[in-house]
Amino acid sequence: MFMHNKRLQYTVRVSEPNPALGSLLLEQFGGPDGELAAAMRYFTQGIAEEDAGRKDMLLDIATEELSHLEVIGSIVAMLNKGAKGSLSEASLEEADLYMSLNAGGDSHTQSILYGGGPALTNSSGVPWTAAYVDSRGDPTCDLRSNIAAESRAKIIYERLINITDDPGIKDALGFLMTREVAHQKSFEKALYSIQDNFPPGKLPGLSAYANLYVNTSQGEGDTTGPWNSGEQWERMDDIEGNLPLDGGDGLASVQLGEQEMKDYTAMTARLASDPDASPTTGADLGAGPGAGKLSDEDQGGASDMDEAKAMARAQTPEVEER
Amino acid sequence: MFMHNKRLQYTVRVSEPNPALGSLLLEQFGGPDGELAAAMRYFTQGIAEEDAGRKDMLLDIATEELSHLEVIGSIVAMLNKGAKGSLSEASLEEADLYMSLNAGGDSHTQSILYGGGPALTNSSGVPWTAAYVDSRGDPTCDLRSNIAAESRAKIIYERLINITDDPGIKDALGFLMTREVAHQKSFEKALYSIQDNFPPGKLPGLSAYANLYVNTSQGEGDTTGPWNSGEQWERMDDIEGNLPLDGGDGLASVQLGEQEMKDYTAMTARLASDPDASPTTGADLGAGPGAGKLSDEDQGGASDMDEAKAMARAQTPEVEER
Amino acid sequence: MFMHNKRLQYTVRVSEPNPALGSLLLEQFGGPDGELAAAMRYFTQGIAEEDAGRKDMLLDIATEELSHLEVIGSIVAMLNKGAKGSLSEASLEEADLYMSLNAGGDSHTQSILYGGGPALTNSSGVPWTAAYVDSRGDPTCDLRSNIAAESRAKIIYERLINITDDPGIKDALGFLMTREVAHQKSFEKALYSIQDNFPPGKLPGLSAYANLYVNTSQGEGDTTGPWNSGEQWERMDDIEGNLPLDGGDGLASVQLGEQEMKDYTAMTARLASDPDASPTTGADLGAGPGAGKLSDEDQGGASDMDEAKAMARAQTPEVEER
Amino acid sequence: MFMHNKRLQYTVRVSEPNPALGSLLLEQFGGPDGELAAAMRYFTQGIAEEDAGRKDMLLDIATEELSHLEVIGSIVAMLNKGAKGSLSEASLEEADLYMSLNAGGDSHTQSILYGGGPALTNSSGVPWTAAYVDSRGDPTCDLRSNIAAESRAKIIYERLINITDDPGIKDALGFLMTREVAHQKSFEKALYSIQDNFPPGKLPGLSAYANLYVNTSQGEGDTTGPWNSGEQWERMDDIEGNLPLDGGDGLASVQLGEQEMKDYTAMTARLASDPDASPTTGADLGAGPGAGKLSDEDQGGASDMDEAKAMARAQTPEVEER
Amino acid sequence: MFMHNKRLQYTVRVSEPNPALGSLLLEQFGGPDGELAAAMRYFTQGIAEEDAGRKDMLLDIATEELSHLEVIGSIVAMLNKGAKGSLSEASLEEADLYMSLNAGGDSHTQSILYGGGPALTNSSGVPWTAAYVDSRGDPTCDLRSNIAAESRAKIIYERLINITDDPGIKDALGFLMTREVAHQKSFEKALYSIQDNFPPGKLPGLSAYANLYVNTSQGEGDTTGPWNSGEQWERMDDIEGNLPLDGGDGLASVQLGEQEMKDYTAMTARLASDPDASPTTGADLGAGPGAGKLSDEDQGGASDMDEAKAMARAQTPEVEER
Amino acid sequence: MFMHNKRLQYTVRVSEPNPALGSLLLEQFGGPDGELAAAMRYFTQGIAEEDAGRKDMLLDIATEELSHLEVIGSIVAMLNKGAKGSLSEASLEEADLYMSLNAGGDSHTQSILYGGGPALTNSSGVPWTAAYVDSRGDPTCDLRSNIAAESRAKIIYERLINITDDPGIKDALGFLMTREVAHQKSFEKALYSIQDNFPPGKLPGLSAYANLYVNTSQGEGDTTGPWNSGEQWERMDDIEGNLPLDGGDGLASVQLGEQEMKDYTAMTARLASDPDASPTTGADLGAGPGAGKLSDEDQGGASDMDEAKAMARAQTPEVEER
Repeated sequence: MFMHNKRLQYTVRVSEPNPALGSLLLEQFGGPDGELAAAMRYFTQGIAEEDAGRKDMLLDIATEELSHLEVIGSIVAMLNKGAKGSLSEASLEEADLYMSLNAGGDSHTQSILYGGGPALTNSSGVPWTAAYVDSRGDPTCDLRSNIAAESRAKIIYERLINITDDPGIKDALGFLMTREVAHQKSFEKALYSIQDNFPPGKLPGLSAYANLYVNTSQGEGDTTGPWNSGEQWERMDDIEGNLPLDGGDGLASVQLGEQEMKDYTAMTARLASDPDASPTTGADLGAGPGAGKLSDEDQGGASDMDEAKAMARAQTPEVEER
Repeated sequence: MFMHNKRLQYTVRVSEPNPALGSLLLEQFGGPDGELAAAMRYFTQGIAEEDAGRKDMLLDIATEELSHLEVIGSIVAMLNKGAKGSLSEASLEEADLYMSLNAGGDSHTQSILYGGGPALTNSSGVPWTAAYVDSRGDPTCDLRSNIAAESRAKIIYERLINITDDPGIKDALGFLMTREVAHQKSFEKALYSIQDNFPPGKLPGLSAYANLYVNTSQGEGDTTGPWNSGEQWERMDDIEGNLPLDGGDGLASVQLGEQEMKDYTAMTARLASDPDASPTTGADLGAGPGAGKLSDEDQGGASDMDEAKAMARAQTPEVEER
Repeated sequence: MFMHNKRLQYTVRVSEPNPALGSLLLEQFGGPDGELAAAMRYFTQGIAEEDAGRKDMLLDIATEELSHLEVIGSIVAMLNKGAKGSLSEASLEEADLYMSLNAGGDSHTQSILYGGGPALTNSSGVPWTAAYVDSRGDPTCDLRSNIAAESRAKIIYERLINITDDPGIKDALGFLMTREVAHQKSFEKALYSIQDNFPPGKLPGLSAYANLYVNTSQGEGDTTGPWNSGEQWERMDDIEGNLPLDGGDGLASVQLGEQEMKDYTAMTARLASDPDASPTTGADLGAGPGAGKLSDEDQGGASDMDEAKAMARAQTPEVEER
Repeated sequence: MFMHNKRLQYTVRVSEPNPALGSLLLEQFGGPDGELAAAMRYFTQGIAEEDAGRKDMLLDIATEELSHLEVIGSIVAMLNKGAKGSLSEASLEEADLYMSLNAGGDSHTQSILYGGGPALTNSSGVPWTAAYVDSRGDPTCDLRSNIAAESRAKIIYERLINITDDPGIKDALGFLMTREVAHQKSFEKALYSIQDNFPPGKLPGLSAYANLYVNTSQGEGDTTGPWNSGEQWERMDDIEGNLPLDGGDGLASVQLGEQEMKDYTAMTARLASDPDASPTTGADLGAGPGAGKLSDEDQGGASDMDEAKAMARAQTPEVEER
Repeated sequence: MFMHNKRLQYTVRVSEPNPALGSLLLEQFGGPDGELAAAMRYFTQGIAEEDAGRKDMLLDIATEELSHLEVIGSIVAMLNKGAKGSLSEASLEEADLYMSLNAGGDSHTQSILYGGGPALTNSSGVPWTAAYVDSRGDPTCDLRSNIAAESRAKIIYERLINITDDPGIKDALGFLMTREVAHQKSFEKALYSIQDNFPPGKLPGLSAYANLYVNTSQGEGDTTGPWNSGEQWERMDDIEGNLPLDGGDGLASVQLGEQEMKDYTAMTARLASDPDASPTTGADLGAGPGAGKLSDEDQGGASDMDEAKAMARAQTPEVEER
Repeated sequence: MFMHNKRLQYTVRVSEPNPALGSLLLEQFGGPDGELAAAMRYFTQGIAEEDAGRKDMLLDIATEELSHLEVIGSIVAMLNKGAKGSLSEASLEEADLYMSLNAGGDSHTQSILYGGGPALTNSSGVPWTAAYVDSRGDPTCDLRSNIAAESRAKIIYERLINITDDPGIKDALGFLMTREVAHQKSFEKALYSIQDNFPPGKLPGLSAYANLYVNTSQGEGDTTGPWNSGEQWERMDDIEGNLPLDGGDGLASVQLGEQEMKDYTAMTARLASDPDASPTTGADLGAGPGAGKLSDEDQGGASDMDEAKAMARAQTPEVEER
């Protein structure tokens, strides 16, 4: 069970409101590498985990990430405190309020739709989605995903620190960034405490293909490195000459039953495109005789509506010159 | 800051694994009215709230909803415990494992993609999205949204209780359902502790339109009730006769600058559809002479590819009769 | 069946084009509390409703919301009329057109992708999703959701009115805002015309938990109010001392069959993280000897590539100094 | 199988970095009419296609669209080359980096989240979704969808060309735009090489309704044209007089079994809204005595909290005047 | 403005409830080619359209599609009438209700989440998204998109007709299918009433690339047809020999300023992967000595935790054998 | 530039159609760890990469993943070959076709919507989204993400192999699975060829927090392991006693300007919830006198509509007993 203390894990001191900065910081509130994603990744793993040690670690870190969600959300809330009041009380002229909404980021949506509260979106206003959570129920995969996720969160915090000159915010972001480093270390330790963690799963892979590097991108710029050469690798450069790798015909095939075959043949015959046809097409009809067009002759299409008539139609009551 | 105790708020006793039931229960884990949605709705409101009493209440309830997320997630994890092991260890024949994946709900995805861990999706596998969270930063709106959300969560739990005969699960679901009722009561109390909470906001509305009921759906089945008749209502039945309500021309208009007008006219002329044309169209070309077709004459199109040739083309090496 | 008259329900008079304002107004066209969401919420409820009175009311209001969708969409279309023509006809210099796209909001996407037509997105360009529609097929829930939705729509219109100084737009927005107030009243009347509408559904809830307030968020700032104290409430402050609420062990458990147990044990053994290990990890490998790094010693990893070589590699033909 | 040459299909020469322009160009990288959508539309059709000619054509064009994805992505990468380095190395003051992120479009997210790499989003930061891909497994539909998609891609490129004055980018966009024209022509030829391609499918449609034009939008502005008049059309203006078109009662009905009928009746009775009620509602409670409010009398609600107390509560330690 | 008559455009007579069939029919309610998508496509085009004829046509058809949304939604509502009552009133045993939810399609979600009302999802429960709406504000594109959309909707109806043996539903689906045919015809007529409708837009395309067919997919199965040969085409088979098409170097390049160059070089040097390194990796650490693993030697990693200890850890109190 | 050969990288031999299995295999076509996600992850990194070696490697592997997308898509297409023909040609009775759609997975949507072509969805029909792609433009993050993604893809293939007994499919899946292992090895080598790759980025982290393990989840089940104890760790068990970690007050604060302060105070006063109120609420109104309800007295609400009237209202013409 969760409990809460109204003190934050880290004190938040914001010098002055700045909703545009607030909307950028949302990246770590409701963005793909933000604190909700982190908390939910570890929480969903933790409640399904059987290993007592990992379960405890996952719940520890999930709980701390929720606390970080609270810290980053509180920063955003403080940055929006001014805009929230002025829009709510309509204390400024309309034009001034309008201007204040276009100061940067997607802060316009933060004010109008979310009323200055921190929204679970990224810095472009994209709502958080559980598609960001890549828990797969196997610890040798999940711990690698966690390691990667912590490394991504670290770099996003670093970028946010680089654009912030409010010392209180910078300080809190530095704390949050550092905790991602510590968490990555925990996940690394847990992964390498599993014997034979590579490759994941029980199936060993087919030996013929496990050490093969297929050089599918060729031309100038082809290189070698430890990722494709050395004693752990067998390298294949002649792609087409080795197609397919299994020595078969390289086709996809299926065996159909009698009725299936009949249906298949009927459908295919009905829908065949005749390779010997030379049909007039909709594009042919549409490519009129106008200058700069691709086709040289008028193949029909619209009758020759004259310009005056066309312009007359254009002057609906909708628009007038000011 | 959040803290956690590894005991659940409510004990979970599952009689036996049942991944299909587990996939239905996901509705309250990662569905639109599930516990994550509840927790995030109150949490985002709580950290932006200025009223000390509401802030405390919102954080209390958000924290409890996270604890409920843990309870419902633990039920799902228990229901998947058998499937997780058998798929992971491949202890059954392929055909048996395959059959076990098609027992109902969207449990196939739960096993293959999520490996038996509770996923933040609804019962159709739709990933949770922050689009479910309707916090708007005004308490007279947000508390109404919370009241509505609790009522929805209550009914979903009731439906799940109605389909579950495992007594331990039924018991825990009953607890979770009841807590939604208690939370709804809290939010009601907080709403009605705000003076003048209706209508929301500061602007009072235009008196001409605030008590008007527009009977836009007519014909047999037209009724009256307290929602459209009585002393609080003025009712309008003659829609077209009162169009538009403001007494204007009912059109949309804008004033354009000189260059804008020029561009507008040019664009409109260039793209006019001639109402007097009688063009041959792509559909005309395509509506061949075949039986059961809409058009009576062959307007060209593909040349007359004969059946034998079409069938020959159909017999690609891809398919063969078994 | 729906019918349409080309007059709007309310006349739209826009003083001059302003695509950035148009993109903000999209919040009520394709945003979560916009007119499409309203129309679809009531329409989906209406066609499944059995109560004749509510069905009629829901279809009345759904139809009016579609008419409001037309009004707000027409405002946006007018605000985009200038930009649409100039981009379509390319009548300005590229740099001027480019500048015009960055005037605020997400109007850049409105012009480039949607060509100046009103798009079913919110003010950040997020496409409308039916995840916004929370119809649940129970009127005591759905009417509460409708009440909440109307209150939210009202406040969004108020915010938009506060930022608009074009009198024609302000007037139309005032009309639309007021109608939300009237609709909220109708839904309130319909809800309270249902006897025993609280709690929703048939199941009454467990009496032990229905009046309990769990004070999960503690520390400074703890408050009382009618939402957690008074005769309707029993309050619990000692969370851990009452864990779990049911008096059990607070664990999640499931009974497995024999084969399930075997698989479970095998899987768990195979994937255990050894708590007594002290493994070298990928992070240990990667934490090199550089200044400002966390680890004090070089644990291997990359060979000592010298700076000159690294810089040489950096100068690909891609970039050159200007 | 795919192969790759590190040369692009078209050379990309960018004069200078401009991340804001880069974020607009993303429309054709990860937007709905962008190159990934094109490639995936044709690729999914190609691998399921039975007609040898169309299969080859679809794979040809899919492969070329992937190559175009590489060209447009490379332009975006070049436009971000400067911002990427300066944010990564933090070589500028925070305030300068912050300013550089708000230069237009959604370039703030491109820098912070995606680190200057081209992201599979549109120009508003909306992630690409396979919902854009409308392959349906019938060539008479799919080819029409392809034709339409190519026409849309063409117009988006034209708009981007109109806002770009960098000659190298303009040149490459011109190439990409032109290829869409060529691809549209191919798809047109393939469609019209299918005999009897209209209407799609085998079922001919009901003759009573296939040539009927229902004039559902009436009032001023009603027009005729070849789309609703002429020998191919029968036109219906009296909508309500012809309701329903089939001559039935225009209702929806279903026959229920005995138990179903019993449940239905019980549910409906339980949840009826009494049309003769005159209930007090939540809104009645909430509409206080304040000026400008809709209701004239205080129906209770919050007790009369005095202003001083309210203001005292408002001054939490969170905010202080600077 | 919209108005509504409670009669449907077409009478709906359903023989008996069948929620699984209902969930399949949702494809045309809330699926990508369903009636909401159709209505919104034409409605968004109609309110931004300047051509009086097309505007009228678009609003006519949009209004009719809304009426079709009502017809298909009413069918779904009728098919769910039995399940809705039995789940709401809990009149069956839990096990029977549970079974009834797993009868096919995604009807489980329809009952639990949506309570038997028609939901704006497709047949897999995916919520409708405005990403389906491809209006672009240019009629030569939009009309093509409409033509394609109608053809897709026609084929989906045909498939649904093929799987339905309830005569009342089959009849109504036949009506709806036929109307798509009629609408396609209208859009075709409107398109071909625009002079010079191909290619879309004002820019003609570069003549060097407009008639070129690039044979990017080669090998067995290469074909010719009117889509790549004949007088309208120039065909290119030697891809790599013509790379890039413009005669340049086929690279992407950008010119950087002095500081940009410095940052770029620093970043690149800092992050270079040394091609001459032979690093030990995390995978090397993790590939233990176990049978069936890829690597032959123990490179460290976790200490040698023995099996008994691992099994002891696995027997947490969570699971017990039944 | 990409090129293509119509031979697959690996021959696909499917014994017989099975659309339900096909829908499960979609997990690796359009699921989060599927081949499109892999291809797009490496492709977006590759085109923005400056290191020549990594760029080459990323494009090599991206190209191979596209080829794998083709292999897995071809398997799915073969599995659907029978269903596609029979639904297209309607060769079976409706009831038989209907039954065939409910054989498992989400194959119903595959047939009805996608017509038997492989769709870019996962096994629950969720459309692929670029939210799955976690490229961040820093190689020390991106390579870790790639390593994790390959490990996830490996395990999904293993699960699919475990449920498939068609030898041809099993063979091809084994190939695809093995290639993920090889790719993971390449990414590992590339990561560890970067000197000082941990922590990512330039900022080193705050030493006070980098080695701290915060034991936020306590109670029974607390464990130690290398992830939270040993010489690399400092462990904190007393959470509340150390709140906040920075020694401040643990609050969030901001300094407001004079007008901002005025607005803030006005808003807060206006919207205060009076903690001393004892308001009657909507729930109080709605909790009628019925049995099993929470509240003991009738507080008004609906008038006492008698049962007969309610039942009369319930028997609309919509339903009749059969």
